[in-house]
Amino acid sequence: MLLNEMRKDYILDRWVVIATQRKRRPVDFMKAEERRKLSHCPFCPGNEHMTPPAVLVYLEREGKMIKDKDQNGVRHRDWLVRCVPNLYPAFTSPSSSESGTDGVGEYECMKAIGHHEVLIESPNHDEHPGVARISQLILVLNAYRDRLKTLLSHKYVKYVSIFRNHGSDAGASLSHAHTQIMATPILPRIVKEELDKCVDFWNETGRCVFCDIIEKERGSSRLIWENESFLVFAPWASVHPFEFWIFPKRHQSTILEMDSKEIRELAVIFRASFGGLKRLLGDPSYNFGFHMIPHKSFHWHLEVYPRLTVWAGFEKSTGMFINVVSPEEAASNLKEAINKEFEDLKEKTGN
Amino acid sequence: MLLNEMRKDYILDRWVVIATQRKRRPVDFMKAEERRKLSHCPFCPGNEHMTPPAVLVYLEREGKMIKDKDQNGVRHRDWLVRCVPNLYPAFTSPSSSESGTDGVGEYECMKAIGHHEVLIESPNHDEHPGVARISQLILVLNAYRDRLKTLLSHKYVKYVSIFRNHGSDAGASLSHAHTQIMATPILPRIVKEELDKCVDFWNETGRCVFCDIIEKERGSSRLIWENESFLVFAPWASVHPFEFWIFPKRHQSTILEMDSKEIRELAVIFRASFGGLKRLLGDPSYNFGFHMIPHKSFHWHLEVYPRLTVWAGFEKSTGMFINVVSPEEAASNLKEAINKEFEDLKEKTGN
Repeated sequence: MLLNEMRKDYILDRWVVIATQRKRRPVDFMKAEERRKLSHCPFCPGNEHMTPPAVLVYLEREGKMIKDKDQNGVRHRDWLVRCVPNLYPAFTSPSSSESGTDGVGEYECMKAIGHHEVLIESPNHDEHPGVARISQLILVLNAYRDRLKTLLSHKYVKYVSIFRNHGSDAGASLSHAHTQIMATPILPRIVKEELDKCVDFWNETGRCVFCDIIEKERGSSRLIWENESFLVFAPWASVHPFEFWIFPKRHQSTILEMDSKEIRELAVIFRASFGGLKRLLGDPSYNFGFHMIPHKSFHWHLEVYPRLTVWAGFEKSTGMFINVVSPEEAASNLKEAINKEFEDLKEKTGN
Repeated sequence: MLLNEMRKDYILDRWVVIATQRKRRPVDFMKAEERRKLSHCPFCPGNEHMTPPAVLVYLEREGKMIKDKDQNGVRHRDWLVRCVPNLYPAFTSPSSSESGTDGVGEYECMKAIGHHEVLIESPNHDEHPGVARISQLILVLNAYRDRLKTLLSHKYVKYVSIFRNHGSDAGASLSHAHTQIMATPILPRIVKEELDKCVDFWNETGRCVFCDIIEKERGSSRLIWENESFLVFAPWASVHPFEFWIFPKRHQSTILEMDSKEIRELAVIFRASFGGLKRLLGDPSYNFGFHMIPHKSFHWHLEVYPRLTVWAGFEKSTGMFINVVSPEEAASNLKEAINKEFEDLKEKTGN
């Protein structure tokens, strides 16, 4: 497998992976519907041979959860959560790469070393966070933690991005509930800028800048929902209509620091938030991305971007954005929908 | 007319216009096809009353081109190019604004003062750059220059973005050939970062960083096309598949510095490049944006982004990008298509 090349813009601090593994010819872009209509979903149980061997599976054995991986050509079939390498990886581990560009080009570049995985969230094709069982979401969150821990242990990994594409407008090519995980050899621009500000604020004040923001947003008209451990709000300068962020109230740099009560409460927040989003807007396409850096001054959070409008020439060429829904109005609508969702959920689960 | 508010992110250097002028309710986002199917195109001749009065029209009078605007309730109907204020402006001029937010919020913000215009490129609905007459494109480029000059003359304008959205995947809501112009009260992030690098390089070396890049790219496998005054190439770290940039060879900071020969050569480059793009990929959606700053160290250029793939959770949450087509391959394909387009064009026009 060839390593992809990462290139930096001539002058901007902007990195691009040239992912020739995913190479397509011009004619491929001309088709009206370019996504393969698979008769069999490669992520559904029974089709495990359609993906590379799993690096992690959760299994139930005699009423107990155990972890394993696919080995010796045998693939587990009775998994509850399954994590596999991406068939067309953007980032490749140094050990699995036969050769690659040498990282020396006409301008700044490097090898796209890292990992690119798909975490299949459930054996049930449609068990997306907005409709999932809380017990299943707890498994998914634990699987995120397992993969994060493993990937962060590699010296060549500088950041782990856990993100989700839901719906074709959000770039999802397969509809089975899944999350993607990319481990990158650099700290990406947006999280680097966040970390720099966190470190500066920490050094100046001894406090976490996000802890202060959480405290302010709790009392604002942008607050959407909170439980004992988490807060959901529409950010002050939301880039997307109905964008919302989820923060742990307790200062922690990554999801590895959550205790079991927090994991359960996050699962409930997931179910209520994404269920509310679906209720309000009719299952819109969305992306989410965790922001996590194992540094004492950083405060992890999840950002959710509904894909209701398109970034056009202005946004793409300037880096400024236009949002047609105010965060306060978005929060008010989301709050109502999420409250209803949570009431329904309480009735169903009896807690 | 109320002024919109611009908000800065809690910690990132990222600005968003909260454009409540364009306000929509949640239910509006639920419709499968949200764009109005207009029985009459508001940009076609005869429908001038469907837009605000023109701030600029080009007219032909006795074989000569003249410039005028709509005045005293009368709208010109026999225009060749027509520029009107956007009905739902993101930025509004201070004089036309009755009131607005006071620019003081819980976090950093300011009034969205500026201008937002639509430049209707031709009376012919479908006269897009890829198929337009060279003579019409020369009018369009001259109209860009006229509006740029006028808008830059306002003290409150810090940047003028001239951009084009082509096709619904690129955010175009109307299909009549048109360009948008936004005058903003701040220098947007991407062009500011470019300017900073240009100034640093200028001060260190006495040269323009883009002049050096042009010289290098002329000899590279990313070169697509050139004439006496302009160069077209696929940038080294292209963010989009088949992205290309157009640069004037002569160092100039904005299109106001072009002479009449350069204007004509740019019109030819437009026709050949966008015609080639259409030939290669079947009239794909695309955005383009001019980068122009009236500063001696800046070198204006046009960036063209075909919209063939979707930015997903990774791109949105990290600011890193994945491009599935290498710039060298894109250049090779575009070069062939543009050469063919140019040959056809020469046959047709006989020059």
